[in-house]
Amino acid sequence: MSLSTLQQNLLPLIEKALQDYINSLDFDLVNDLKEMITYHMGWHDDEADSASHGKRLRPLLLLLCTGALHDDILKALPAGISIELLHNFTLIHDDIEDRSPLRHGQPTLWKKWGIAKAINTGDALFSIAQMSMLKLRETCNERIAAESAHRLNQTSLQLTSGQHIDLSFENMEKIPVDAYLDMIKGKTAALISLSTNLSGLISGQSGIVQKHLSEFGKSLGMAFQIQDDGLGIWGDPEITGKSAVSDIQTRKKTLPILYGLEKSLEFKKMWDKENLHAEDVTQMAEALEACGAKAYAQSKTKAYTEKALSNLERLFPKKNDEAQALIELSERLLNRKF
Amino acid sequence: MSLSTLQQNLLPLIEKALQDYINSLDFDLVNDLKEMITYHMGWHDDEADSASHGKRLRPLLLLLCTGALHDDILKALPAGISIELLHNFTLIHDDIEDRSPLRHGQPTLWKKWGIAKAINTGDALFSIAQMSMLKLRETCNERIAAESAHRLNQTSLQLTSGQHIDLSFENMEKIPVDAYLDMIKGKTAALISLSTNLSGLISGQSGIVQKHLSEFGKSLGMAFQIQDDGLGIWGDPEITGKSAVSDIQTRKKTLPILYGLEKSLEFKKMWDKENLHAEDVTQMAEALEACGAKAYAQSKTKAYTEKALSNLERLFPKKNDEAQALIELSERLLNRKF
Repeated sequence: MSLSTLQQNLLPLIEKALQDYINSLDFDLVNDLKEMITYHMGWHDDEADSASHGKRLRPLLLLLCTGALHDDILKALPAGISIELLHNFTLIHDDIEDRSPLRHGQPTLWKKWGIAKAINTGDALFSIAQMSMLKLRETCNERIAAESAHRLNQTSLQLTSGQHIDLSFENMEKIPVDAYLDMIKGKTAALISLSTNLSGLISGQSGIVQKHLSEFGKSLGMAFQIQDDGLGIWGDPEITGKSAVSDIQTRKKTLPILYGLEKSLEFKKMWDKENLHAEDVTQMAEALEACGAKAYAQSKTKAYTEKALSNLERLFPKKNDEAQALIELSERLLNRKF
Repeated sequence: MSLSTLQQNLLPLIEKALQDYINSLDFDLVNDLKEMITYHMGWHDDEADSASHGKRLRPLLLLLCTGALHDDILKALPAGISIELLHNFTLIHDDIEDRSPLRHGQPTLWKKWGIAKAINTGDALFSIAQMSMLKLRETCNERIAAESAHRLNQTSLQLTSGQHIDLSFENMEKIPVDAYLDMIKGKTAALISLSTNLSGLISGQSGIVQKHLSEFGKSLGMAFQIQDDGLGIWGDPEITGKSAVSDIQTRKKTLPILYGLEKSLEFKKMWDKENLHAEDVTQMAEALEACGAKAYAQSKTKAYTEKALSNLERLFPKKNDEAQALIELSERLLNRKF
């Protein structure tokens, strides 16, 4: 089975498990809260598809890794659901903290219901994510459930550290590229790393195998984020499905931009202008490319992807369908060029 | 030993365990985040005392109940720390959601560091609370740790439901007294109920004993909140240590006020005025008393306190020091008249 066949099998399974879990909870009198969660998860629209919500990458990775380790993927499902819900909780709060008005082309939760109720709904989703992780008591055992919940919260603390650094960047004149890499390690790579790591815990692998699984996820997460940064400037919105507004326009301090601010006086001068017109943005993207920012981001993506692939090779010298799909998923990163 | 002797022994133990746990965590590069937590917990001031933070009521109750059940209170300490941290996480977010500028006479976290970083720090504290609960793996076992973490999150979901209802009240013309009681059941009583309940789980009590422990905490929590509502209008700030600004002035929709809006046309008419002067507030407090709002709140406090006491009687027919202290703590509610 190829990656796309496995995705076709697993994504509906994940989506149904997410919905079933939310529906199983007792919201008592507070149906509004459930409506807000349903909206954020992208289920308010009858024709909801993956365009109205995320790619469910994290549970997909967790299930594929569990399958690649020759274990029953259903055992790992509560953990996958938990991580996806935790991810969505962070998106709700990040959107408030970053004042983002749109997500997947729809108004964000706080734009629709106000900041107060949106913070509170995020908190509810955080608790729900925790409860789903503890359902590993049923599919595995008490020890694995408690340890997985512990790792979930260790990771969540890393996420808040990453987010704190990111928020501090707003008021910093000069952000070293290394500080940025540290930030995305916490903010993006940590949760992807947990997704791959937990497959090892759940299927009873040794500490060293769990460590390689973490490394695989971390490298993949870093590659994924830096590629995203590149697509935010040079990606074709028609192909990427991302916003057509360049990260240059929105002044998002991503890796290529930080590189450009360090290396290109021309770019720095334009960045400091009060208002940016469309032609400025085009010229600035060209200046970034000229100073080597694009090549730098591409080389970083390539290096992290190769690291991820070499971890896969070490983890799964004999490849079943799921291991093959993980390789395909990692290699795809290199092909989604920017 | 009396309540005050036990408090003198337990409160420093609780405070040290809280600080030790925060200090044991790896905050990596993000010292700011730790500073924000330290500030919110009331430890930024060298002369910090209970005036600069809360009363640590929840861990105190949990430890007293554990002692009353003749078990080692140190076994329950991670759960007490967890609940106190969870409580503080909710305060950080509530202060943002309610736009409260002050807590314990100091600027709230969001007032000092901005909304974005304050939301994120609350999230960090939530994760830390979860990890502390899972430390019951060390003092008890895997099963108790996982079950306690599960109950923590069930309760946290009740808290968000209560808070959602409370936020909805802001835009409601008419709030029935029953809806208000439902709201404080989630927002205040649920976590106090968890504090007493977990002592039973930790010390291996039967389901029925755990249920009575929950009921005791719930009744105490309800009595506590309604008494607080009364003190917010008729309390002497010199004695209560609460703000001298009446809840009437700040338009806080508490139980006596909702009762007054239902029963007293005179009060309702003044409430609808744009600006309230000091003499209006005095007159309104009198109107509330005249229509029976004060007596109503007092009778509710009394009824819930009696329910709490009768649960205690059933739980601890033979009383050791801790059981005696729990009775004293409950009776004190009746004596802190408003």
